[in-house]
Amino acid sequence: MREVFQQELREVQERLVKIAELVEAAIENATAAFGNSDVALAEQVLDGADEIDVLAAQLDQLTIDILARQQPVASDLRLMVGALRMSASLERMGDLAQHIAQLARYRYPESAIPKGLKKIFVRMGALDVEMASKIVELLGTQDPRVIEEVRDLDDDLDELHAKVFEKVLSDKLAANPMGAVDATLASRYHERFGDHAVSIAKQVQFFLHGTLD
Amino acid sequence: MREVFQQELREVQERLVKIAELVEAAIENATAAFGNSDVALAEQVLDGADEIDVLAAQLDQLTIDILARQQPVASDLRLMVGALRMSASLERMGDLAQHIAQLARYRYPESAIPKGLKKIFVRMGALDVEMASKIVELLGTQDPRVIEEVRDLDDDLDELHAKVFEKVLSDKLAANPMGAVDATLASRYHERFGDHAVSIAKQVQFFLHGTLD
Repeated sequence: MREVFQQELREVQERLVKIAELVEAAIENATAAFGNSDVALAEQVLDGADEIDVLAAQLDQLTIDILARQQPVASDLRLMVGALRMSASLERMGDLAQHIAQLARYRYPESAIPKGLKKIFVRMGALDVEMASKIVELLGTQDPRVIEEVRDLDDDLDELHAKVFEKVLSDKLAANPMGAVDATLASRYHERFGDHAVSIAKQVQFFLHGTLD
Repeated sequence: MREVFQQELREVQERLVKIAELVEAAIENATAAFGNSDVALAEQVLDGADEIDVLAAQLDQLTIDILARQQPVASDLRLMVGALRMSASLERMGDLAQHIAQLARYRYPESAIPKGLKKIFVRMGALDVEMASKIVELLGTQDPRVIEEVRDLDDDLDELHAKVFEKVLSDKLAANPMGAVDATLASRYHERFGDHAVSIAKQVQFFLHGTLD
């Protein structure tokens, strides 16, 4: 019985890693689609979103089954509760990648990035991709150093998010309401993506130490 | 033992209702602060946000304790899993009310609502308040009819969200990038608030019927 349970816990962990890998691919492609106005790549992200949702729902079902059958306690219980929360965050990160891809598609063949903001958005996208990649690593290794790395990356992201608003509200973007809307939404999506990565890092910390801070 | 457990389940439900009531008050005040540029009311929402976070964290802890001690199955287990998800949604709804209050405070003594959008935002705010009130009702009564009502209100909200973008991208708002940013963010916050209300309604459905759809 115990061995079956250990196998099931590994299964939960592997599925989390698998979903995180899909999220990483989604944000990488969404960022490229947004930066290069690549509508084919945007479509690819939009088509792939269902897979993340389905895998997250299946993982939730597995987790609830394990809770019912194995009635875990202590760190095993924390892993199950954490898995439910992390699958919700991963699903949401997939949604946000999809929203970014959608902006690219809506504006095609124009760019969704207003002039003067290209560099910032390339950097925000790169930070999101790096955070997603760190989450894949963290879920696979549970290395606590990665938790700090994710938090640091999120600080950088928040700075860029503030910078986007500065730029949007500067004179250069006046009389370009569509650019202002796109930049506001895209920046918000990137920032929320980072917030969810931090949430996942906190869940791993909760699993490792029993505390969220 | 069984009686203690029933008492604990009631406690979980009562705490969810209590948090939902705080969220309802927060969105009601945030909407009023945003609509009337009432900075004192905005501060009140910002000050109250901690209470929602603390109560949600305490509820999570209680839920995890119950999972560990009582090892519930079937609908009791679904209620525990649902409680974790619903507390996350309620906390997020509190955050979104806070974001709306923050917009009001940032722009004070100006209005955060660009000209021509006042009516739409009053209506969006009223819909969010109504949805929060329905969630309080639903958590207290588990009346399945309320689930449908929440979904219908969300459809209305989504329509208004689309209308905000139409207006922002129309000529009237050109040369007002700050208005475009504020309207974009506020509309997005209102829409996400509604999404979380629908998530909670789905969780109650999951509890009642074991299915999310």
